[in-house]
Amino acid sequence: MEGYRVLEIKQSVFENNDREADKLREQLKQEKTFLLNLMSSPGSGKTTTLKATIAALKDEFRIGVMEADIDSDVDAATIEKTGAKVIQLHTGGMCHLDAGMTRQGLQGLDTADIDFAILENIGNLVCPAEFDTGAVKNAMILSVPEGHDKPLKYPLMFSICDVLLINKIDVLPYFDFDIEACKKYVLRLNPNMKIIPICARTGEGIDEFAQWLREHITAWNA
Amino acid sequence: MEGYRVLEIKQSVFENNDREADKLREQLKQEKTFLLNLMSSPGSGKTTTLKATIAALKDEFRIGVMEADIDSDVDAATIEKTGAKVIQLHTGGMCHLDAGMTRQGLQGLDTADIDFAILENIGNLVCPAEFDTGAVKNAMILSVPEGHDKPLKYPLMFSICDVLLINKIDVLPYFDFDIEACKKYVLRLNPNMKIIPICARTGEGIDEFAQWLREHITAWNA
Repeated sequence: MEGYRVLEIKQSVFENNDREADKLREQLKQEKTFLLNLMSSPGSGKTTTLKATIAALKDEFRIGVMEADIDSDVDAATIEKTGAKVIQLHTGGMCHLDAGMTRQGLQGLDTADIDFAILENIGNLVCPAEFDTGAVKNAMILSVPEGHDKPLKYPLMFSICDVLLINKIDVLPYFDFDIEACKKYVLRLNPNMKIIPICARTGEGIDEFAQWLREHITAWNA
Repeated sequence: MEGYRVLEIKQSVFENNDREADKLREQLKQEKTFLLNLMSSPGSGKTTTLKATIAALKDEFRIGVMEADIDSDVDAATIEKTGAKVIQLHTGGMCHLDAGMTRQGLQGLDTADIDFAILENIGNLVCPAEFDTGAVKNAMILSVPEGHDKPLKYPLMFSICDVLLINKIDVLPYFDFDIEACKKYVLRLNPNMKIIPICARTGEGIDEFAQWLREHITAWNA
């Protein structure tokens, strides 16, 4: 039997998502829980990146993960093996999570004993960018096989994130991916973006991401 | 100056998208225009696949391409070089096209002299699956770096398509992608799916896709 719960979350009914998101952030601040919203295309390596990140930080923080997926439990089963607390959220076809849905997930996860909560959002570069989940920071992954032109095509996602992980850098020799052009496109949209090249599979670059998280989690939970 | 137009399409107002899609298909049948709706994640190779497919079929059919994108003109500029008629559709943030939006695109393209029209949909495995565009056939691309578990996670997309192109098979040695497992997951959702492994960059498998298209276009336009 699996050790994780599956929660069918319902579309939320709040007219003003931005206000709900702000309320959720205030509550997280009071409860000393840092929430990271992790977004990307399908298949760019969100779950593998989370596994490596949890391994790097699990001795310092109590970590809880919400795996949002339309239908399957594949990712919760993977994350469960890291020892982190995990809950699978089923969005029932919804292509994003808003603040109300994220609140349902946090309640299902029960964040009373969690310092660092992570929402693995639906694999989608469009819709999740449009809804503030209430997270303290937004992270995104762009993987090398997707191409360096993606900031031109999905500008909102690259504009609203705080950190960009360029993943699968081990396969750079096999793809026509110009990392400097990518950085230039990203920084033109979002001059404050922290950009970290990583390979989640081998662990390359995960230390730098873990350090970025460590600083932000510690400041938030102080 | 570019030789392609950019059309800002508006969100359509039809309550019953399925009925609008059926009406559009009837009209395409009368006008002897075959419409293919091509969907995938961002970066899986839609535009490169289209370039290779247009090269294979341009001497047999008059081809027109609608490049749907949230904001940029990157893809229309690429497709224009193939010699095919092309129009760039800007969806203004919308994550999918419905039948009403597709009709606006076809009018902008002007399909009077087109046998084979292609809609390159927004890069997104979620929302485009939920809206019938009025296309005669739905095609999708899954690329090797995305992973073979995607049918488990985006089941609707894999259920509503007629043909699946498994792209970037040239990088199979560098990724943990089980092509037989992928086929099994897909056929369980959709026993009628035609599955064609391709490498759009080298042209491998494009002949088989072109033959599949040739048969369906010829039958529709008869």
